[in-house]
Amino acid sequence: MTTYRALTEAEAIAYAKELPNIFAADAQLTSREIGDGNLNLVFHITDEQSGRSLILKQALPYAKVVGESWPLTLDRARIESEALQLQASFCPELVPHVFAYEKDLALTVMEDLSDHVIMRKGLMENNRYPLFAGHIGTFMARTLFYTSDLGMNQQKKKLQVGQFINPELCKITEDLIFDDPYRDSPNNNVEAHLKDAVAAIWKDHDLHLEVAILRNTFLTRAESLLHGDLHTGSIFIKADSTKVIDPEFAYYGPMGFDIGALLANLLLNYAAQEGWSTDEAERADYRKYLLETVKEVWTVFEREFRTLWDNDVTDPMSETPAYQDWYLNRVLQETIGFAGCKMVRRIYGLSHVADIDGIEDASAREKAQRLALAIGTSLIKHHRKAASIDELIAIARDAAVSREGVVK
Amino acid sequence: MTTYRALTEAEAIAYAKELPNIFAADAQLTSREIGDGNLNLVFHITDEQSGRSLILKQALPYAKVVGESWPLTLDRARIESEALQLQASFCPELVPHVFAYEKDLALTVMEDLSDHVIMRKGLMENNRYPLFAGHIGTFMARTLFYTSDLGMNQQKKKLQVGQFINPELCKITEDLIFDDPYRDSPNNNVEAHLKDAVAAIWKDHDLHLEVAILRNTFLTRAESLLHGDLHTGSIFIKADSTKVIDPEFAYYGPMGFDIGALLANLLLNYAAQEGWSTDEAERADYRKYLLETVKEVWTVFEREFRTLWDNDVTDPMSETPAYQDWYLNRVLQETIGFAGCKMVRRIYGLSHVADIDGIEDASAREKAQRLALAIGTSLIKHHRKAASIDELIAIARDAAVSREGVVK
Repeated sequence: MTTYRALTEAEAIAYAKELPNIFAADAQLTSREIGDGNLNLVFHITDEQSGRSLILKQALPYAKVVGESWPLTLDRARIESEALQLQASFCPELVPHVFAYEKDLALTVMEDLSDHVIMRKGLMENNRYPLFAGHIGTFMARTLFYTSDLGMNQQKKKLQVGQFINPELCKITEDLIFDDPYRDSPNNNVEAHLKDAVAAIWKDHDLHLEVAILRNTFLTRAESLLHGDLHTGSIFIKADSTKVIDPEFAYYGPMGFDIGALLANLLLNYAAQEGWSTDEAERADYRKYLLETVKEVWTVFEREFRTLWDNDVTDPMSETPAYQDWYLNRVLQETIGFAGCKMVRRIYGLSHVADIDGIEDASAREKAQRLALAIGTSLIKHHRKAASIDELIAIARDAAVSREGVVK
Repeated sequence: MTTYRALTEAEAIAYAKELPNIFAADAQLTSREIGDGNLNLVFHITDEQSGRSLILKQALPYAKVVGESWPLTLDRARIESEALQLQASFCPELVPHVFAYEKDLALTVMEDLSDHVIMRKGLMENNRYPLFAGHIGTFMARTLFYTSDLGMNQQKKKLQVGQFINPELCKITEDLIFDDPYRDSPNNNVEAHLKDAVAAIWKDHDLHLEVAILRNTFLTRAESLLHGDLHTGSIFIKADSTKVIDPEFAYYGPMGFDIGALLANLLLNYAAQEGWSTDEAERADYRKYLLETVKEVWTVFEREFRTLWDNDVTDPMSETPAYQDWYLNRVLQETIGFAGCKMVRRIYGLSHVADIDGIEDASAREKAQRLALAIGTSLIKHHRKAASIDELIAIARDAAVSREGVVK
């Protein structure tokens, strides 16, 4: 098995059988291809007798979303497996365990997490996860701190930057998040009822300036090893466990991009409540839960990050008074800006989110979309002035209130 | 010749003879080792008959300054030769031509520039170079623009970042410029008469904050392929020609670091006039020339950079109104901050400059040193507020005037 080929289910089973110390030699394995992404095959391998199971994730050499015509590097499988293993070294309980990585097949053998659900789905069912903010705040604090110049040897960090250079996957982000949504690009996917709002964004030069600045930060700030695609569809969750998956977009970039992605997806669900909750009190209550979660995610991140800094900082200049405050304020500002960009692109860019698109009633969907755009553009415009996470919360709350008054 | 060894002069001659199409087969070559740096052997190979000559530059596996005990990667010879060739693709007339690079020997064969002088020497003789600002402004604009996300394909740029990862040489900068000078480090080299001024810097937390921010920018902003050590000792000059040499510190960093290094070295000579000119009118006049050069370097850089941006920009978001102004103001601010750091470290850090240390009269030298420290620390503290190069000029001029009044 030394030349790449996309595995069949039978081949996936044969491969899994050969793995040392996992299944019995005479185990009867079954496989189900459960990939619902656009880029990979995901085989769920089960041994019903022992109850053991595994995931085989194989990168495809193209993006399925547009057929085989969009080739995509297999190197992302290496990046994903190496990122997972690095993240596991900082917080093993928050990522799936990697058993093996087979370079030639672009194949990663991972822990099966099918007792968890994808968080986006959980939020769309209005479930609550009281431990989530603590888990994800810790995940971000630890992975972002320990891969930065603050938390590791600064010469080794440079080599690690080289290890995670990821041009093709970064290009997807650069195009779909920091370019297409701000002009009339064929990659956009604009519903007819949104055309006026989108046309206004295409003409808003003040907004474009802030996006250009954020794009520049994404392109040039080699700060930490990012997950790179940290939305609620990249998180497996259940009441007592959170697992961050799919870091194939990992590269060295600005911390705020990961944090902003996560907060944006909570806020997209917040906007989507326009369409999901028919009971107004229930809607208000779930929104309150979401905003409390947003705040707690940042609060945990900041507290953990400051603790790591105080205890484990490697950079001799980093003990300078006021520098930690300056640093975290910059991360906060970029978090808010990136959160805004991540919201906007999910409303009329190439790739939407089920929270919003799943709203069947067109008028309710439109309300949710306009609310998300109002929050997203406000966050982008405000980001360089921000000094507290409460400003993000206030923007989300005010936008919802004024929508309730105006649009309803 | 496939295993590394430091060449003798005889071996350098033998090697030069084998180069194709340069010397005649029966040429009588002579060699002189002229390396006055700390890190390399530099053989000047001459054929008196034809008048042809060449430079063979070989990296040593250690830093001579502290004997063989400070090992240093030979990979810097690859980085230097690749950087020179890349720079030559943007401005061939402003760098030495590279004829060959021999990886195993860490050896670069280059154009002989011995009809030029090292610019630091020229400035110490109070020479003037009316074409210099135009040359170096163009060099910086072209090399910094065309290696950035503004001027090249953004995916190729990421691969180029990987090509120029340069941990060991960066560490020298990080330690000697952004760490040691701000604490009582054994690497510092403090003259007794400066102890009070240096002690004040070690206690100045406002200053440390600005240095920590600049250090962070040096560590994380992968903006352009820098020369990395662009002082007046890295420039060969004569009336009608400027050649930038020795880019072994090249790596992807913030544009302002190169520009700031250059301006700092002009300002160090400006401070050194305290000791070099005995005639007061002459001193004032040469200082005026130096400040005019500083201003012209920035002005040419900015004009050329804006022209390249207007004509050749590759980034689709970069045409956003006001973005170019925002971008150049950020580069200006970082230029001013890095210029300050570069001045401070040359006064009492590990490695000084001949402009200052060459002043034999201790009292005059002290005046020059204190003036350089006053300018350097003011630039660092002011940098995040700067909006015009005139502010840097005013800081230099005001510091000299107040020194003249107070210290004399």
